[in-house]
Amino acid sequence: MKYYTIAILGATGAVGQAFIEGLAERNFPVKELRLLASSRSVGKTYLFKDQPIEVQLACEEAFEGCDIVLGAVENDLSEHFAPMIKKANALYIDNSSAFRLMQEVPLVVPEVNGEDVLNHQGIIANPNCSTIIAMVAVSAIHKLSPIQSMIASTYQAVSGAGVQGMVELEDQIQDYVNNKPLTNKAFAYQIAFNLIPQIGGFDEIGYTSEEMKMQNEGRRLLHNDSLLVNCTCVRVPVMRSHSISITLQTSKPLEIETVKQAIQNHQGCLLVDNPDQQQYPMPLISSNQDLVHVGRIRKDLTQPNGISLWCCGDQIRKGAAINALQIAEKCIELKVI
Amino acid sequence: MKYYTIAILGATGAVGQAFIEGLAERNFPVKELRLLASSRSVGKTYLFKDQPIEVQLACEEAFEGCDIVLGAVENDLSEHFAPMIKKANALYIDNSSAFRLMQEVPLVVPEVNGEDVLNHQGIIANPNCSTIIAMVAVSAIHKLSPIQSMIASTYQAVSGAGVQGMVELEDQIQDYVNNKPLTNKAFAYQIAFNLIPQIGGFDEIGYTSEEMKMQNEGRRLLHNDSLLVNCTCVRVPVMRSHSISITLQTSKPLEIETVKQAIQNHQGCLLVDNPDQQQYPMPLISSNQDLVHVGRIRKDLTQPNGISLWCCGDQIRKGAAINALQIAEKCIELKVI
Repeated sequence: MKYYTIAILGATGAVGQAFIEGLAERNFPVKELRLLASSRSVGKTYLFKDQPIEVQLACEEAFEGCDIVLGAVENDLSEHFAPMIKKANALYIDNSSAFRLMQEVPLVVPEVNGEDVLNHQGIIANPNCSTIIAMVAVSAIHKLSPIQSMIASTYQAVSGAGVQGMVELEDQIQDYVNNKPLTNKAFAYQIAFNLIPQIGGFDEIGYTSEEMKMQNEGRRLLHNDSLLVNCTCVRVPVMRSHSISITLQTSKPLEIETVKQAIQNHQGCLLVDNPDQQQYPMPLISSNQDLVHVGRIRKDLTQPNGISLWCCGDQIRKGAAINALQIAEKCIELKVI
Repeated sequence: MKYYTIAILGATGAVGQAFIEGLAERNFPVKELRLLASSRSVGKTYLFKDQPIEVQLACEEAFEGCDIVLGAVENDLSEHFAPMIKKANALYIDNSSAFRLMQEVPLVVPEVNGEDVLNHQGIIANPNCSTIIAMVAVSAIHKLSPIQSMIASTYQAVSGAGVQGMVELEDQIQDYVNNKPLTNKAFAYQIAFNLIPQIGGFDEIGYTSEEMKMQNEGRRLLHNDSLLVNCTCVRVPVMRSHSISITLQTSKPLEIETVKQAIQNHQGCLLVDNPDQQQYPMPLISSNQDLVHVGRIRKDLTQPNGISLWCCGDQIRKGAAINALQIAEKCIELKVI
């Protein structure tokens, strides 16, 4: 068995930390693990399989000899480091949105379009977190009958804004209980006891960048350039699991039992759909694990071929780090690395 | 000017208390105010315009001489007391769902179908809270071009489960901060840091009673028996303002600016739609006031005549007590009482 030299770019953030945990949990074939970050984190130490690893400066030399670089940095830094990673001849699996819509960069959710890794030219992009979670569920239905359009409303956890988002909700809750004034920085408004219907910037037709990802990235994942998606993204006071209410229209009518069966048999999905026993997906239960929980599956009342569902998944894990690791595993399986 | 003898049936609950506040705030022409509740609340005292009023037992005699009874009790109690209220010749404005779908009982949101009060036969029903909030916004568009179908996902505050719902979220937050185990009773699961995609019981096709209200009551409010509504109702950890993500389809295409203008000019709506200034409706801002805040208005990307919007409104006030008081005011204005 081959072992790989792995670098985590942005090792100190929420996704970076989930990479360290995930590599250990999944027993990923790691020869050497490098933790890379900015100068202010250099020298910090993290445990990987009980061994301390010191954070190194992210720089050109740090990538030398790497087989795989797992990226957990913002777009500008991702663009900055990508040429250095290419020069080092490493495969870059990037969690930022910098390269997601480039034709030559496969955008991959292994349960949806895993074979697309075969086309990589050095970079494979990890999709947006809500898009990953929605598409794991939706692709099970897409395989039964192509999806033509989709209306989605998201309920997105604060972890989507990184560690700072989680700290901010925690701090606001603490301050609330201690009768202190609530402050905000990671979010534009108080998030405790509130909802914020904006994630990302607005475009000229009134959609946010986060909302358009569901359509733009969904098209690439489902290999359907004419897929129409209308998304409303909302931040909710939940720690780390995103939920999405979806109504979609398939090309031909489907029986609900057939859809449930397809979800149940689809890799990456857990069918949680026993309304009579009050069993349905909830963020509290879908957090800290890797499956997308899918339930509330029913016929849409407005369109003949419509299906409604509700799904939840851990934003940091399946929505980011674990999906990237699964991409790496798929690359090993298909021998593209 | 005529003054009225008013009874509040269920005066000690969240909506009952909002009735007392609302009658005072709106300077409603009250001759006498009676606060009615079950035996366990008899003798409690509440202030109305600085005058203490003692809670009386809700019973047949208590309705004698009343002009208007404002109901804030559950369906079974509403059905129990309705004949007594009728016998006393009082107008019953009922916040329960017991009579909402009866042909002879007008279901009214004054800004939507106020003139329907003209047809009352002793009972006027106050609609479901999410339905009121959604329909105030939607009816502004319906008047431009009839709405054919609507897909809604709700984000419903804990106040929808009454005072107990609010106390439960508050207690869970306190226990969380104090490292105590979280307990639940008002809701089937922990609601702090969680979402519960069930409000009401499930029907045989997988919809909850709360979800079907949006279609069944929406049809009566908009006078459109063929309106198709697909709703997903979700409880969120927010105190008292409901939010709803709506995508609707009108009969003919509408310009977004026309829709915004219509919302702005529609009674009961406040247009909050300046994405560039990060202004959009949020529960924190729409709580403790009576307007439905409407924003994120944009073209649906999936259907030619589709419009998407996001609205928020106070569940206890416009979603319940204030709408009922506005019904009473409309009855006075149209001289049906």
